[in-house]
Amino acid sequence: MEFRSILLGFSLYLVYFVDIVISRHTSSFVRSEWPSTDIPLDSEVFAVPKGYNAPEQVHITQGDYDGKAVVISWVTTSEPGKSEVLYSKEEHKYDRTAQGRYTNYTFYDYTSGYLHHCLVDDLEYDTKYYYKIGTGDSAREFWFQTPPAVDPDAPYAFGIIGDLGQTYNSLSTLQHYMHSGAQSVLFVGDLSYSDRYEHNDGIRWDTWGRFIERSAAYQPWIWTAGNHEIEYRPELGEVATFKPYLHRVTTPYLASKSSSPMWYAVRRASAHIIVLSSYSPFVKYTPQWWWLKGELQQVDRERTPWLIVLMHAPLYNSNEAHYMEGESMRAAFESWFVQYKVDIVFAGHVHAYERSYRISNINYNVTSGNRYPVPDKCAPVYVTVGDGGNQEGLALRFSDPQPDYSAFREASYGHSTLELKNRTHALYHWNRNDDGKQVPTDFVVFHNQYCSVESFFHIQQ
Amino acid sequence: MEFRSILLGFSLYLVYFVDIVISRHTSSFVRSEWPSTDIPLDSEVFAVPKGYNAPEQVHITQGDYDGKAVVISWVTTSEPGKSEVLYSKEEHKYDRTAQGRYTNYTFYDYTSGYLHHCLVDDLEYDTKYYYKIGTGDSAREFWFQTPPAVDPDAPYAFGIIGDLGQTYNSLSTLQHYMHSGAQSVLFVGDLSYSDRYEHNDGIRWDTWGRFIERSAAYQPWIWTAGNHEIEYRPELGEVATFKPYLHRVTTPYLASKSSSPMWYAVRRASAHIIVLSSYSPFVKYTPQWWWLKGELQQVDRERTPWLIVLMHAPLYNSNEAHYMEGESMRAAFESWFVQYKVDIVFAGHVHAYERSYRISNINYNVTSGNRYPVPDKCAPVYVTVGDGGNQEGLALRFSDPQPDYSAFREASYGHSTLELKNRTHALYHWNRNDDGKQVPTDFVVFHNQYCSVESFFHIQQ
Repeated sequence: MEFRSILLGFSLYLVYFVDIVISRHTSSFVRSEWPSTDIPLDSEVFAVPKGYNAPEQVHITQGDYDGKAVVISWVTTSEPGKSEVLYSKEEHKYDRTAQGRYTNYTFYDYTSGYLHHCLVDDLEYDTKYYYKIGTGDSAREFWFQTPPAVDPDAPYAFGIIGDLGQTYNSLSTLQHYMHSGAQSVLFVGDLSYSDRYEHNDGIRWDTWGRFIERSAAYQPWIWTAGNHEIEYRPELGEVATFKPYLHRVTTPYLASKSSSPMWYAVRRASAHIIVLSSYSPFVKYTPQWWWLKGELQQVDRERTPWLIVLMHAPLYNSNEAHYMEGESMRAAFESWFVQYKVDIVFAGHVHAYERSYRISNINYNVTSGNRYPVPDKCAPVYVTVGDGGNQEGLALRFSDPQPDYSAFREASYGHSTLELKNRTHALYHWNRNDDGKQVPTDFVVFHNQYCSVESFFHIQQ
Repeated sequence: MEFRSILLGFSLYLVYFVDIVISRHTSSFVRSEWPSTDIPLDSEVFAVPKGYNAPEQVHITQGDYDGKAVVISWVTTSEPGKSEVLYSKEEHKYDRTAQGRYTNYTFYDYTSGYLHHCLVDDLEYDTKYYYKIGTGDSAREFWFQTPPAVDPDAPYAFGIIGDLGQTYNSLSTLQHYMHSGAQSVLFVGDLSYSDRYEHNDGIRWDTWGRFIERSAAYQPWIWTAGNHEIEYRPELGEVATFKPYLHRVTTPYLASKSSSPMWYAVRRASAHIIVLSSYSPFVKYTPQWWWLKGELQQVDRERTPWLIVLMHAPLYNSNEAHYMEGESMRAAFESWFVQYKVDIVFAGHVHAYERSYRISNINYNVTSGNRYPVPDKCAPVYVTVGDGGNQEGLALRFSDPQPDYSAFREASYGHSTLELKNRTHALYHWNRNDDGKQVPTDFVVFHNQYCSVESFFHIQQ
């Protein structure tokens, strides 16, 4: 442990101490709220790009296990067009080509456009790439930056967004996020809320795709599915779950030996990120259970000290909305999260913000055991960021009094950022949307669960 | 309430009182056990029927919601042959024909025979039907009895078998069951244990099909899937879960408006039977959750007073084997079982027998709630009958002391019978395989949760 690191640790400890003193906090902030209605279809926020058959709804995600590939996705509407990406390290001088494929789907009376997905691989780390899709006057150009090589001290900044939707609150969240400097989005489920429309109107999937393009075309969004992606509508003859989601979004699940795009893992800089599916089978003996068991065993904290889990339905939540809906998955997975010292579990679902202390309830025993979650230094911090801004509005009723396991909670819109500084420390903020301004509201210094110098500075996070 | 009924109720109460006095019992019975190894492939128990392409592995299940249809299933191996059933109410005089379909599948290096499924519908209630499948010298004849019309006082006897496998213990269980007089099997999952063989050898599915034919060709087996049906083997390239199960077994799921053969309901005589899938998605917002919510709402206890739920993994189990594995589903569904006054929940999975009192743990609250299951007169009785006799052997270690929620438990092989006498009373037995003899060991009179005369005789079951 070099001196600089110790000094940084000590400074951060002081900051953290200040934070902890004011903790276990239910914010009294009253948000001045825009109406929770979706932005109108004809808004320029959803503008269709100019030109015949121009690619739209451009978004990228990580395309492999370690960050040397992206999948670039887009939609064409008049005809399929080429499923091809031109790219290079120099702007406007495209010297490489990748071939993708396209698909489409129907959902009751909606027919999607041509949904293209193109893997661009063998990229160099920490490099800016420019890319071009579409042809002639309709061609469009974007860029992205690859992450640094997987390394325990590689700094990296993630944004965390959940339950986004497409209201003015959603727009505010996205705009604030785009000024945060974060390099990639960990999206914890509930994307377009298209299922809130009659017949799950796919047109609202398209507007959402155009809405997020401003960010998602330039940096990878790591996808987690939420309940609004299930789109199970037997009365419309639509019983294949996650149909629009699975057509529109790709995940690099094969790279982590998953058998389903619904759960997978990626490594990025100093983080190992595990994405779980709240609405797929997860109990013992199911594929997701076997896969997670194997994936946790092969996490190498010497290479990726930060172990982060994403899911939609939170395991800990003291809001009346969706209270204890995560119990089924908690019963299945919590003991592993403690055993493997997961750093943080991010979830969405509840339309408010909440952060827990490091607590666990793994000794709960239906015959004879403990009742309450207890402080547990090996446990993750559970963060709920279901406050992206969708049309369903905020979850305003927290249980009273605030339970011991809950550190901070506030029912307003916002997003989080997690800045991994090195193998021992990370800065975490939750940023409230405050009448148009982004206000850092909850701040924590996370000490890595595997690498932190607990002998010096151990405190209960 | 007529006098005869009251008299019957009172007599049964006396019997029950005797039973309750000796209850909360962990049996000290030590079973003289045959080796838990599968019967050899060349045993006559698995004999292939004579003749070219003779239909084998014949089994039937209910084919509709109310019991006026069956699906007849069988396998041919040399060629598909006709997917046709001849049937009639008179023996050897077939005057009606039903057309089925066939399918087959591969599983790694195994290729199945031709798996036929043929719906025979528009049957009369309470009627014996003869049927014939196959052609020429290879034709085979069987019969079945349709249930009485759905009626609150229609008597009916179910057998309950779980975790059967194909050992000599399995054979003993099946032979005892066949002498019980029960009219239909509620099978609570784990069928062939074919997945215990290298590459999930499908040959053991075929032997199992021939093994159960002695019962299943003559009366419907109502199917529930267990963990041994998942057959998720990514290392063999087999990642589609329940592949052999879904090809070999049919369920009348469409008749109960389910979107999956894994969960469904049937009505039979005075019973409404709900089959759940422990290893499919079941949390809030998933198809199984929506379906169960709807199905429970439309149960008509005036027509079918007996509400019975089947699943594989038990919600209450005090054996060390699979302890608390049902917690995830308990968190999702237990409150509904209490709200809708389910009579009995049958499960398998644990290779022992256990019966609970009427208890619930629905007030458990991660923030502030109760810890233990408590007596609850609205709750179901939970019965685990995972003791069919498979090669994995018995689950011999019960928690000590016996928890308050557990009424009777014993680690030996056997099966249960449930005789619905009328809308108020049912006789229930668990029958131990005792060195070749069937010994009624646990006996309870169930008072219907909807119709029983609680004001006269309410006692805690």
